[in-house]
Amino acid sequence: MADVASISTLDEIRVLLKELPGPDREAARAAEDRQSQLTKPLGALGRLEDLAVWLASWQGKAKPEVERSFTAVFAGNHGIAAKGVSAYPPEVTKQMVANFIHGGAAVNQLCSLADSDLRVYELSLDEPTADFSEEPAMSEEDFVRAVAYGMMAVEEGIEVLALGEMGIGNTTSAAAICTALYGGDAADWVGRGTGVGDATLTLKAELINQAITLHKPTFENDPLQILRCVGGLELAAILGAVIAARLARTPVILDGFTCTAAAAVLYAIDDRLLDHCVVGHQSVEPGHVALMENIGKEPLMNFNMRLGEGSGAVLAIQILKAACACHNGMATFAEAGVSGPAE
Amino acid sequence: MADVASISTLDEIRVLLKELPGPDREAARAAEDRQSQLTKPLGALGRLEDLAVWLASWQGKAKPEVERSFTAVFAGNHGIAAKGVSAYPPEVTKQMVANFIHGGAAVNQLCSLADSDLRVYELSLDEPTADFSEEPAMSEEDFVRAVAYGMMAVEEGIEVLALGEMGIGNTTSAAAICTALYGGDAADWVGRGTGVGDATLTLKAELINQAITLHKPTFENDPLQILRCVGGLELAAILGAVIAARLARTPVILDGFTCTAAAAVLYAIDDRLLDHCVVGHQSVEPGHVALMENIGKEPLMNFNMRLGEGSGAVLAIQILKAACACHNGMATFAEAGVSGPAE
Repeated sequence: MADVASISTLDEIRVLLKELPGPDREAARAAEDRQSQLTKPLGALGRLEDLAVWLASWQGKAKPEVERSFTAVFAGNHGIAAKGVSAYPPEVTKQMVANFIHGGAAVNQLCSLADSDLRVYELSLDEPTADFSEEPAMSEEDFVRAVAYGMMAVEEGIEVLALGEMGIGNTTSAAAICTALYGGDAADWVGRGTGVGDATLTLKAELINQAITLHKPTFENDPLQILRCVGGLELAAILGAVIAARLARTPVILDGFTCTAAAAVLYAIDDRLLDHCVVGHQSVEPGHVALMENIGKEPLMNFNMRLGEGSGAVLAIQILKAACACHNGMATFAEAGVSGPAE
Repeated sequence: MADVASISTLDEIRVLLKELPGPDREAARAAEDRQSQLTKPLGALGRLEDLAVWLASWQGKAKPEVERSFTAVFAGNHGIAAKGVSAYPPEVTKQMVANFIHGGAAVNQLCSLADSDLRVYELSLDEPTADFSEEPAMSEEDFVRAVAYGMMAVEEGIEVLALGEMGIGNTTSAAAICTALYGGDAADWVGRGTGVGDATLTLKAELINQAITLHKPTFENDPLQILRCVGGLELAAILGAVIAARLARTPVILDGFTCTAAAAVLYAIDDRLLDHCVVGHQSVEPGHVALMENIGKEPLMNFNMRLGEGSGAVLAIQILKAACACHNGMATFAEAGVSGPAE
């Protein structure tokens, strides 16, 4: 990723996005061919078959692997939190980062189970972004720096990258990104986040509508500016990680609403830019369903989770492992001496 | 399970079903209490929280475990297969059992991944049940013997039991069980199984409607007789395993349509009898959704799978492991020094 460290302007990001590689179609065909020979009716493993072929297409090999997965959780603080959009005080971002580091959070347990390396990236937690209802959340310089920081999280040799975030107030950012990208009233995109009441829900929507009016001249027809104006440092880093993973042809698992919203900016620029990503789970946040429809994704699972911190993405690593285990380990009809269909 | 081996009549099964234990409500309360202290907004792990409490209630401890899971796959042959209801010839049941034993099937790979002990139980594969469109599939003696055989598969010390089946023709049995239990035309319950065409689909429904007319006087108001008349040996064994697991308070994961149909007979007798069971995944078989509604279950996952052999149940072991990992391993707010909600 030598070229990544040199990214320092929005234009350099724009140029990079035009140079990203596509899938390896030959590896995908070889994987499809293998699937057709395994001892099961073709299609009987449903989406597990598709996932194996998808992994093959990005890893560039007929037998993909999910042994070396990596989980990156980005944490940032949000100026908008001072307006009282969350049920929790902003200190919780830092406290939860300490919890991640000490191994006490949900994502720690899920990473242990999935044998996934977890790393937590703090984005200047003592310096929250600006309150986006009043001014752009980040300067161009800060935004690009956070994107580049996220890019550098993607190291060589990762077979699957799971992404997550932590940031008190960031479902408000996510809803603002969706309102800016897809239109409608903010009330259609906001949800209860960590568990806010009706009054706070209304406040979230009002602040977002105010922000959209304020920033629309800046971000119109420029999705990267949307993320800069109403996003957050950890969301910019997620964008960077998704871009760097694409450069390395590393398949990505996105987590819930906030993480998907950050990545959706890329889809708005070019609808192929999320082809190397799956969405791990469907969040309880009501905007997540519509967001996924807008980017053409179906979540892998739905357990009514709304925790963030990568929990739904890491859980989905198990599903990719299962897809690979069946794809690589099953006997073919010929090997097992099993008869094919009679009709 | 000393008393289980002595089961030799339908009446003995009926008596046993009145003596089955319920959940441990004290353990469930202790688990709920623990959930409320973990470092996450209450409810943020959604169904994973419910699953941890459910496991606690059956294992009888506040911190349940899914280290020692056991996967039992029952295989049987069906007289109805001679009528051409499957895309595959009946020999495939035996060939797939050999594939299970040699480790080449999907369920083998999924069990390895979930670290689950797999055992395959063959129910006299050379002697298929009778063609249920012409006579009862099993005599009372054979049926009860198969139930008792399934009971004996549940050994001591199993923390979770995953159940699966293999039997060419058995989605026809499953659809027949549903038609008998819930009414309607068989056409509402049949599906393509391993992948049959339209003509075979129509044939399946016709044979089932014929069977229902034939056996209705025998099975009316007697769900066990439904399973005897139109079920199969492997389905009777699944029923037995679900009963024995309840006796041992072992939580059970049911697989897809066929496995769920066998278990549904218990729900028809007493709607508490499947409280120790979850359904691992939603099958592509169209009858599975309505079947689950009838027994008040929501599947854990949906990957458009339709393989059987326990594949969807074993995949779901990972979800129960994740639920336990979070429940047992996460820090509490007090331990981690994380602030609670502000409002």
